[in-house]
Amino acid sequence: MYSFKNDYSEGAHPEVLKLLQETNMEQTEGYGLDPYSQQACHILKSLIQRENVDIHLIPGGTQTNLIAISAFLRPHEAVISAQSGHILVHETGAIEATGHKVIPVETADGKLRPEEILQVVRFHTDEHMVKPRLVYISNSTEIGSVYTRNELEQLAACCRENSLLFYMDGARLGSALCSEGNDVNMTDLGRLMDAFYIGGTKNGALIGEALVICSESLKKEFRFMIKQRGAMLAKGRLIGIQFLALFKNNLYFTLAKHANDMAALLRRGIQSAGYTFFSESPSNQIFPILPNKLIEQLLGNYDFYVWKEIDNQYSAVRLVTSWAVREETIRSFIEQVKGFQP
Amino acid sequence: MYSFKNDYSEGAHPEVLKLLQETNMEQTEGYGLDPYSQQACHILKSLIQRENVDIHLIPGGTQTNLIAISAFLRPHEAVISAQSGHILVHETGAIEATGHKVIPVETADGKLRPEEILQVVRFHTDEHMVKPRLVYISNSTEIGSVYTRNELEQLAACCRENSLLFYMDGARLGSALCSEGNDVNMTDLGRLMDAFYIGGTKNGALIGEALVICSESLKKEFRFMIKQRGAMLAKGRLIGIQFLALFKNNLYFTLAKHANDMAALLRRGIQSAGYTFFSESPSNQIFPILPNKLIEQLLGNYDFYVWKEIDNQYSAVRLVTSWAVREETIRSFIEQVKGFQP
Amino acid sequence: MYSFKNDYSEGAHPEVLKLLQETNMEQTEGYGLDPYSQQACHILKSLIQRENVDIHLIPGGTQTNLIAISAFLRPHEAVISAQSGHILVHETGAIEATGHKVIPVETADGKLRPEEILQVVRFHTDEHMVKPRLVYISNSTEIGSVYTRNELEQLAACCRENSLLFYMDGARLGSALCSEGNDVNMTDLGRLMDAFYIGGTKNGALIGEALVICSESLKKEFRFMIKQRGAMLAKGRLIGIQFLALFKNNLYFTLAKHANDMAALLRRGIQSAGYTFFSESPSNQIFPILPNKLIEQLLGNYDFYVWKEIDNQYSAVRLVTSWAVREETIRSFIEQVKGFQP
Amino acid sequence: MYSFKNDYSEGAHPEVLKLLQETNMEQTEGYGLDPYSQQACHILKSLIQRENVDIHLIPGGTQTNLIAISAFLRPHEAVISAQSGHILVHETGAIEATGHKVIPVETADGKLRPEEILQVVRFHTDEHMVKPRLVYISNSTEIGSVYTRNELEQLAACCRENSLLFYMDGARLGSALCSEGNDVNMTDLGRLMDAFYIGGTKNGALIGEALVICSESLKKEFRFMIKQRGAMLAKGRLIGIQFLALFKNNLYFTLAKHANDMAALLRRGIQSAGYTFFSESPSNQIFPILPNKLIEQLLGNYDFYVWKEIDNQYSAVRLVTSWAVREETIRSFIEQVKGFQP
Repeated sequence: MYSFKNDYSEGAHPEVLKLLQETNMEQTEGYGLDPYSQQACHILKSLIQRENVDIHLIPGGTQTNLIAISAFLRPHEAVISAQSGHILVHETGAIEATGHKVIPVETADGKLRPEEILQVVRFHTDEHMVKPRLVYISNSTEIGSVYTRNELEQLAACCRENSLLFYMDGARLGSALCSEGNDVNMTDLGRLMDAFYIGGTKNGALIGEALVICSESLKKEFRFMIKQRGAMLAKGRLIGIQFLALFKNNLYFTLAKHANDMAALLRRGIQSAGYTFFSESPSNQIFPILPNKLIEQLLGNYDFYVWKEIDNQYSAVRLVTSWAVREETIRSFIEQVKGFQP
Repeated sequence: MYSFKNDYSEGAHPEVLKLLQETNMEQTEGYGLDPYSQQACHILKSLIQRENVDIHLIPGGTQTNLIAISAFLRPHEAVISAQSGHILVHETGAIEATGHKVIPVETADGKLRPEEILQVVRFHTDEHMVKPRLVYISNSTEIGSVYTRNELEQLAACCRENSLLFYMDGARLGSALCSEGNDVNMTDLGRLMDAFYIGGTKNGALIGEALVICSESLKKEFRFMIKQRGAMLAKGRLIGIQFLALFKNNLYFTLAKHANDMAALLRRGIQSAGYTFFSESPSNQIFPILPNKLIEQLLGNYDFYVWKEIDNQYSAVRLVTSWAVREETIRSFIEQVKGFQP
Repeated sequence: MYSFKNDYSEGAHPEVLKLLQETNMEQTEGYGLDPYSQQACHILKSLIQRENVDIHLIPGGTQTNLIAISAFLRPHEAVISAQSGHILVHETGAIEATGHKVIPVETADGKLRPEEILQVVRFHTDEHMVKPRLVYISNSTEIGSVYTRNELEQLAACCRENSLLFYMDGARLGSALCSEGNDVNMTDLGRLMDAFYIGGTKNGALIGEALVICSESLKKEFRFMIKQRGAMLAKGRLIGIQFLALFKNNLYFTLAKHANDMAALLRRGIQSAGYTFFSESPSNQIFPILPNKLIEQLLGNYDFYVWKEIDNQYSAVRLVTSWAVREETIRSFIEQVKGFQP
Repeated sequence: MYSFKNDYSEGAHPEVLKLLQETNMEQTEGYGLDPYSQQACHILKSLIQRENVDIHLIPGGTQTNLIAISAFLRPHEAVISAQSGHILVHETGAIEATGHKVIPVETADGKLRPEEILQVVRFHTDEHMVKPRLVYISNSTEIGSVYTRNELEQLAACCRENSLLFYMDGARLGSALCSEGNDVNMTDLGRLMDAFYIGGTKNGALIGEALVICSESLKKEFRFMIKQRGAMLAKGRLIGIQFLALFKNNLYFTLAKHANDMAALLRRGIQSAGYTFFSESPSNQIFPILPNKLIEQLLGNYDFYVWKEIDNQYSAVRLVTSWAVREETIRSFIEQVKGFQP
């Protein structure tokens, strides 16, 4: 039974394990001060084309979000997020647990727009209300959509004009940056965001996200925050070595592209069988709307989430492809879809 | 240059890496629900000889402490800890960051005793003060000392009589349980503690601690806490597989014993060169008091922490041995100590 | 210029000041342990017809909400509130600042209903999401509506069946319980709620709310919470004496009834001038929809909030009546409304 | 039975009540924006001789401490306090509840000195430890001692040189500034402190402390913090009017002087009866060491705290005088002390 439930069902890409193996018996400094972590950060800075960013390697995504956001905000400041945002729905109130409100905004496609941000800003007028201070987006979003450079630039301008910090959750940044039609690159992010993170876990690493802090005012004493929240690994090299393996030869992008290609193959196959989609996604998560009977059949051979009931007979399902999926797996799946007799 | 700075300078024990490698391409459930994590927990329960404990695999020690303690306490409840306790000194106020005061107690040897706990309890009389509710100890302690079974039983009784929870930080539990003269085993811990953790990172794993919750009343909905604090790994298998490798053939204890043996060899060598020690430690951290000139010489070949100035001419240093240190390294070090001409 | 902005524009009812004066030079215990506070709580228990409730006198409403809710919840537990709820909109994220998410629910009239609660409960399925645990309502609501006994009973049943705590913000409880058509009394609240508070500040006191904790499991060591959040007044008698003055002769209800009567007079007057209302409110806040030109004229003589733009020409305004408003003031206001020439 | 337990056993000074009465039926803005609060702040600024301080009126001392300190600090920053400091011992962990560690420093007389601060600063070297950032003192201290101008200047210089904020808890500031030998005035405080508060509750008010924020960088959006912690009174005038009554004619200092005079009378009387004192206190709290038998006798006529057992036969007691105590009460007490036959 093959699982399309997510992009973290396997271990690490073999190159990642290989480098862990090769470096295993060397002694290094702990807490992310080892040469591998530093080398990895160095490569990331080259990609971003800025030396003056601070990069911190942190075990997981929820952790990165909560450490960054709670470090950046004063007690009365709040976050603006799409209603579907991961911090709003799937992190067990981790941001609120650090004391900050997350203000939800309804969106059609998981993407925030300046008008919606402005509405929130205008609503919050005085000290009886929280003060919106940070705009949280994810790229790709929870439903697979991807921001264009123009959209990011508009958001960044809106943030700047309204004294808002602009933060991107990049759990699936690889897939976003390698998606069809994408015109955003790492350099853009370094220029437009106050901070963002580059997700490793969902693109070939065992563990690890790289938080990039671009704004000078957000950098100070950040390692205290990492330690206080329990995210400073004694063997920090564990993340450093993995990011080094993923970035020294652009493996990261190769893997993301493979996942996207496989998603595109799947999408076209399902489309050509006559089905539509719940959201327009050029990234590695797709949401076809299928007959419940077909879903039942598919679940005999594949594992995946039923995302949303559409009507009595149809539901949207979520199919996630990863760096590890093979083309024949995709083709078999499509075949079963095409062979379905209602 | 060999480092005695700590027991997490290398990667993982080769057996640990091997099992990560072997299982790498299998697809599993995320978030610690994979079969490897479950198998590891199963073996740990056998060791503890109790089925009715809950075991959670958590990336790091600070994280385990802060998640457990904040989950166990109500807002006004506080922790009692030795002044030298890790949570008090070396976790950047992680417990206070979750809202709870840590009450320090001076100790001679890093170990808490019932009299000291009772003094704290008696001092806190009403609602103008925090309510002491949890006793935090570590075994081995920050200065290498180890609790006897009798000491733990007395502490457990004292806690029970005073409605205090009894919690053990086991970052170096392997070394404690394998130390010379130790008479405590896992079963004792399962019987005496309300909760404790079994440290992986400092005994052969890349990452990971196993939190054991013994008291029924502390178990409820604990996975919410793990997720909320950002400690629920998408690839939870990373910790499960490591604990499986460490515990399926008692490798964990073999490694700890090796570290202790090497520390003992080092201790006896230094002793026979005529030096004394800052603390009595049967575990894998020793604290010899050496002439500053000798320390300077040694630092040319070895890395370690100077722990405390003793007088103008002498300082205590900390030497930590690990599963990975080789006997010849120890012997070379002793030789240099013995060869020192004041 | 008379202000209809709120019901706390004046000081205290003269009877309240009088009792403060009379008792002023007596020495009493601090921290709410004085005989006046105890007498006040005794009278409230009689009204509720339950001896086994705990009553705590707390300076303000936001404070009462945040102390109670943070004391009642574990870290991962969340609050369900109407979108218009005071804790959601007008308390600067006070609940989130204690670590808990508040889940908003859209409502037509400011009142929560079981169906909406159930929807929230069903949506929150696992440890990746917060756990809804407390239902927050206010009576009267932010837009003046009032719960019937039947509605409260249905909500209480829904809470019981879903292990939810049921909490009422009674900042304007006096007005609610004295409103036309109300069939709820204090005894009902003691029977149906897990906790609720009786607001003093908005009904004749200078300061002070009485928190009633009905459920045994929520009572333990609550005074620690009050002290920890800074709400235990050294001169606790200040609140006790005021509640004694308000409740020893039912002054509290007389004042609330007066405020409601004045609101009703105002409402009928405005209605008879041909205007409609934004919400149906039988309590001391009314929301007439008036021509912007009339509003402008009225603002020359009266102070009040413009609540919401309705269209180009009309807006809803909020008029709040208090224990202190005089009938002639109401009549003058109505006259000006009636005299308006569009 | 007369109580020397504290200086908040009575209500307010009659002048305070009188002004509350006189202004009672006027309508004012809420939330501290009323003319009385503004007038009171204006007078305080004149006393401090600085227009560019921000003054906020807050109900209580614990609340003022927790709001100020949590507003001033980032998550990893900690407070340095004397071991006997009120925030450390008698505020139920209120500071820790906002996430910040309080680092205790042993002192002989309740007063902090630069050497002790420097020791703490030197000990905290890296991101594994909290970062000391704010020095908390109280004046007078918990045991009645008072800082000299020179001492405050040295502390202020030490703070400046070490990037520490300097904060004074002035719950009994009146008594300190009016104590024998005091050479500090409000202007000094405005010049030396980053923030401090002027206590009303313990010197004639029913409730209320005036927080003075001197440093520009600490002022921003402070009212959000007050509201978020539940300390923004709807009827903010309650505190404004009281401070106006206390400060418009220097009543505040007259009252404090009276309390001090009565304490001095008591001290001299007890001294002349041959007894010594636990601490040297020129303010309104004194700590005579008396025979237990005498204490027992005194407790038949007076209420006060037994502070500390000295030996089998002697204990230190705490006697607090207030603005309200009469000279004949003091004389009777002394008489009983003098009449004691061991």
